[in-house]
Amino acid sequence: MKCIIGIDIGGTDIKFGKFYLEELVEKKRISTNKTDNGKYILDEVFAVVDELVGADELIALGIGVPGPTVNGVVLGAQNLGWKETNVKEIILNRYPNIVCTVLNDANAATIGEVNYGGGANYKDIVFVTLGTGIGGGIIMNRKLVEGYSGSCGEIGHLRVGFTNRRKCTCGLYDCVERYASATGIVQTANEIRLNRRTRLNQYEELTSKIVFDLAKEGDSVALEAVEEMIEKLATALSQVANTINPEAFVIGGGVSKAGDFLIEKLEKRFKELAFFSVRNVKFELAKLGNDAGIFGNMRRVLEEIYNAN
Amino acid sequence: MKCIIGIDIGGTDIKFGKFYLEELVEKKRISTNKTDNGKYILDEVFAVVDELVGADELIALGIGVPGPTVNGVVLGAQNLGWKETNVKEIILNRYPNIVCTVLNDANAATIGEVNYGGGANYKDIVFVTLGTGIGGGIIMNRKLVEGYSGSCGEIGHLRVGFTNRRKCTCGLYDCVERYASATGIVQTANEIRLNRRTRLNQYEELTSKIVFDLAKEGDSVALEAVEEMIEKLATALSQVANTINPEAFVIGGGVSKAGDFLIEKLEKRFKELAFFSVRNVKFELAKLGNDAGIFGNMRRVLEEIYNAN
Repeated sequence: MKCIIGIDIGGTDIKFGKFYLEELVEKKRISTNKTDNGKYILDEVFAVVDELVGADELIALGIGVPGPTVNGVVLGAQNLGWKETNVKEIILNRYPNIVCTVLNDANAATIGEVNYGGGANYKDIVFVTLGTGIGGGIIMNRKLVEGYSGSCGEIGHLRVGFTNRRKCTCGLYDCVERYASATGIVQTANEIRLNRRTRLNQYEELTSKIVFDLAKEGDSVALEAVEEMIEKLATALSQVANTINPEAFVIGGGVSKAGDFLIEKLEKRFKELAFFSVRNVKFELAKLGNDAGIFGNMRRVLEEIYNAN
Repeated sequence: MKCIIGIDIGGTDIKFGKFYLEELVEKKRISTNKTDNGKYILDEVFAVVDELVGADELIALGIGVPGPTVNGVVLGAQNLGWKETNVKEIILNRYPNIVCTVLNDANAATIGEVNYGGGANYKDIVFVTLGTGIGGGIIMNRKLVEGYSGSCGEIGHLRVGFTNRRKCTCGLYDCVERYASATGIVQTANEIRLNRRTRLNQYEELTSKIVFDLAKEGDSVALEAVEEMIEKLATALSQVANTINPEAFVIGGGVSKAGDFLIEKLEKRFKELAFFSVRNVKFELAKLGNDAGIFGNMRRVLEEIYNAN
């Protein structure tokens, strides 16, 4: 039976989905081998693909990578150690008779959530992933918008402060991901828990889950850390809404497991900070979790097949 | 001969352009009559249209208004005194046999500049008007993006400070138009010229033109006011670029008459503030001046004619 493989390459692991049309029939996951600037990654990907499907079964492969991507070329992926890499060409050399697409990872997750998850009911959507960092993807009229250099939706690097308090990995200061990612929340909680009475101090090492769980239970210091995160994220999303006036924000990534507690606070503060004519945005939780990327890459290559015929 | 009328309703005056296809053959301008919440405006518009064209000459009318607009309905236009108004219906009642389109004024100017002015060579463009306020319009893949409630490109209300220094007409604080519009530059210059040695003090009432002219001549206080304006505008545009990764910014409006002096400073600071993968944006001056709106409205209705046939 002919099948499609959706692949999501991340900095920690690589996820594979085998699909019969849009139906997921098998999943697999391997660790990302970052040895020698990630030079073995694609070969290890091919080995798993060959395990999952027979040579004449594979008709299409959609792959997502953590970096800006234009026409199948990844401009660079720091988390893998990759410089500019023509991923599409490498894949088509290995599998000459298939259809192949290459997407930025956040864009792939966006397409997944829009078609099979939290964004299914909307036309103009901004997808936001709150993980180690913050990523984003933009859908207009149900189509992904990629931008001039494939970098639409770099929401994590919106600036939410002007006092140069926290330096970002991008080289600039006070990017929203320094405050509202899992890493950012933990940093805030660590800063404010010192010499305070809080159950946060029962833990040597914090996670964003611990902070949210204690905030839900009413711990006032944990709540303070959450409010700081909400303030910064609502500020950034109000900038996005003022710019492109979306119908819905879909919030995913590990931090979004905090659920309605997070969404309700975020929506309330957002409405106070956005321009009056863009306040009517819906807030939704993502639904696909870690599978958003494999679904999105499958969908993208499926659309490519239909467009080609 | 059949003709199209492009109309640009502003808070101060209303501009009319008579076009044979895309060629402008006659222009007219009247003052905006804001008496009784602008209830006479459309009747006065119709009187001018009837002067400009014979009844069987008019095939299409494209009109722009200063407010968010969805499907021919203006949701509100504070500068005219209008509440929600179905402009398209009123026009088609008066001229039943024509094609009619209604656009937000900044979006109309955007379409004008993209097709006949500073954006003609680009695919993904953000148009920014620096006037009494700051407006914007977004083009992706050479098509206007309007957003869920017709409010794409509310760039003037991006937040560029967190100290609540200047209150905006929108009710929020530190919107970029409080600093980088003509009004904003003058306010900054007035604040900093007190007790300073500067040629700005030769003028009782300042304009943004005076501030820019003296800055170009090396007056250090005027230059300080310009640098503050650049800092805020570059900050806002870097947020826009991080969100939608455009190919070019086209800068128009009265303040843009400061020309290359403005553009060069703006581009330099922008490149320092934007995320690395979106820095490769071109900066262009708008070319149509006050005619951008009439050209844009003509273009929009022309496209509507072609789409309908």
